[in-house]
Amino acid sequence: MSERLANVIKMIKPLDERAMAQARARQDQLTKPQGSLGRLEELSIQLAGIQGKLIPQINHKVIITMASDHGVVAEGVSLYPQEVTAQMVYNFLSGGAGINVIARQVGARVIVVDMGVATDLAPDAQLLSRKIAPGTRNMCLGPAMTSEQAVKAIETGMEIVAAEVTKGMDIVATGDMGIGNTTASSAICAVMTGKAVAEITGKGTGIGDNQLQQKIAIIDKALTLNHPDPEQPLDVLAKVGGFEIGGLAGVMLAAAAHRIPVVIDGFISGAAALIATALSPGLKDCLISAHVSAEAGHRLLLSHLRLKPLLDLDMRLGEGTGAALGIFLAETATRILSEMSTFADAGVSEKDKASH
Amino acid sequence: MSERLANVIKMIKPLDERAMAQARARQDQLTKPQGSLGRLEELSIQLAGIQGKLIPQINHKVIITMASDHGVVAEGVSLYPQEVTAQMVYNFLSGGAGINVIARQVGARVIVVDMGVATDLAPDAQLLSRKIAPGTRNMCLGPAMTSEQAVKAIETGMEIVAAEVTKGMDIVATGDMGIGNTTASSAICAVMTGKAVAEITGKGTGIGDNQLQQKIAIIDKALTLNHPDPEQPLDVLAKVGGFEIGGLAGVMLAAAAHRIPVVIDGFISGAAALIATALSPGLKDCLISAHVSAEAGHRLLLSHLRLKPLLDLDMRLGEGTGAALGIFLAETATRILSEMSTFADAGVSEKDKASH
Repeated sequence: MSERLANVIKMIKPLDERAMAQARARQDQLTKPQGSLGRLEELSIQLAGIQGKLIPQINHKVIITMASDHGVVAEGVSLYPQEVTAQMVYNFLSGGAGINVIARQVGARVIVVDMGVATDLAPDAQLLSRKIAPGTRNMCLGPAMTSEQAVKAIETGMEIVAAEVTKGMDIVATGDMGIGNTTASSAICAVMTGKAVAEITGKGTGIGDNQLQQKIAIIDKALTLNHPDPEQPLDVLAKVGGFEIGGLAGVMLAAAAHRIPVVIDGFISGAAALIATALSPGLKDCLISAHVSAEAGHRLLLSHLRLKPLLDLDMRLGEGTGAALGIFLAETATRILSEMSTFADAGVSEKDKASH
Repeated sequence: MSERLANVIKMIKPLDERAMAQARARQDQLTKPQGSLGRLEELSIQLAGIQGKLIPQINHKVIITMASDHGVVAEGVSLYPQEVTAQMVYNFLSGGAGINVIARQVGARVIVVDMGVATDLAPDAQLLSRKIAPGTRNMCLGPAMTSEQAVKAIETGMEIVAAEVTKGMDIVATGDMGIGNTTASSAICAVMTGKAVAEITGKGTGIGDNQLQQKIAIIDKALTLNHPDPEQPLDVLAKVGGFEIGGLAGVMLAAAAHRIPVVIDGFISGAAALIATALSPGLKDCLISAHVSAEAGHRLLLSHLRLKPLLDLDMRLGEGTGAALGIFLAETATRILSEMSTFADAGVSEKDKASH
């Protein structure tokens, strides 16, 4: 582990209990039966604890969508050709992808990062070029990346967050693009949760049953070959991970260190969260699971992390699309806390003062 | 049944299959794996079918929140005194209630209607005064309202929608306020679904176990006394309903007649939907269930209506708060359909054209 990574991990502190108690007390004074806004109330209290403010603020919203390629696609794990990763990056940059649409609706800025797309991308003012290598290596032939690359991927995510913090960032969401990245994520998930590969591997972009069996066999083969050590999250990332997965783990670590809530998207972000929380278990309290995706292993992954998703809409697009919806709900939660009247302000009778 | 009501029911037509087929075809051309936006895709197709447009529009968003009082509160079914209904109406008008906060976030206008608040409310330009009576009568002593009042309640909802349609309304959400209205809704739900009162009755604003047993006994008593006929939805509404419940049923009927999607909130809106769909089964296709609430009977009610809620956030506030979140998701669904690039436009390879 690098010194920079160790320092960020040291900065991650428990939630602010005082802010949470104050937020809870305020929720109980708002003009509604106590607890009647359910998970929005819990979310507002978590956000208060992360930001360390009675009234958390969600003004500057950022979605970090990291793209990278995966050597394992040579094994035929995906329906789509590898060039789609690069094509989708251009689609993000021109504003036509799903994540762009939802980000516009929720008022979030999308930061597109090339963490390791296989082809050279044309320079673009909107694109952060942080290519660690032109795709990982095929995990069926050896480690997907070197240990240095694994650390570099995480540090890259940390640096991007550090730069955004100086501009103001109240909440960050994680997104991904990478043909083959459900394969890498399933491999990470199998190692970190101890579940069978068959149990946590799904159809990704929509492969058929036969191809799914092949995908499972390929992951099993890669795990047997590389024997990643679940006690060593950086080893797992290097052996079977992806650059975007490492980068997103870095985003989570740095955001938690800066007391910024992190809304995580689907299965790939979940794999990154497995790496990040293994490096810093306390980080978990800063994570908000936006949704449970339709990808087979995601529910088990979230249950392993003890995260309860806000939404269950059968989505499986990635890019940060689910997380963008989670930003909306986080904003709802904070608006409730800041904008609703109290019983006293509105002259509404409380149940304790009921006259019947 | 009045002639006006019969005419509105006659206007309700099946969804536009052609618009739905076109919307589905477009979804499959957008730059994402087919079906990967899950329920948002289905929702966009439903909205296309309701509005009869390939690209449905969600610009003018309206939440109709109807308030009324219930004679059955004399039996002690609620934690809160009856004056809270009126106090909350004032809170709606001053913008400090939960529904105001979420409506502002999603860009919806809230229309507050006095359908039968027990006390006289001060005139307010923002308040629609449509008081049918100062609260219903106690259903434990006889019918909650006359048949004329039941029809009047529904027609009032219809009139409000008709007036809004002339101003432009692309989607409408239903909300309620009325101390005691989970009691009326449980009674309606028991009659219309045939379930035992104990199975579909919950704790409303948060009563304890003993008070819940009393509430169940009170509803059983009212049903035994009034024997509402499940084959006669207007009879059920009159015997054990509420003016806001009838009004919301009227909103649903008129909206469906005008091809306007209706986002329904929680248990009280659900009771109104039971009445409305019994009057016009085809109306169901125009309903979008925003969420399943924490109120005990709501899940069963939705299952009876074969509606699948979009959200499950343990909310139980009413007012239209869940439905307002549903408006947001409906807008997301339509934005996806209208704003996302197609494979051809973005130059992204499709799986059928995959080169591997």
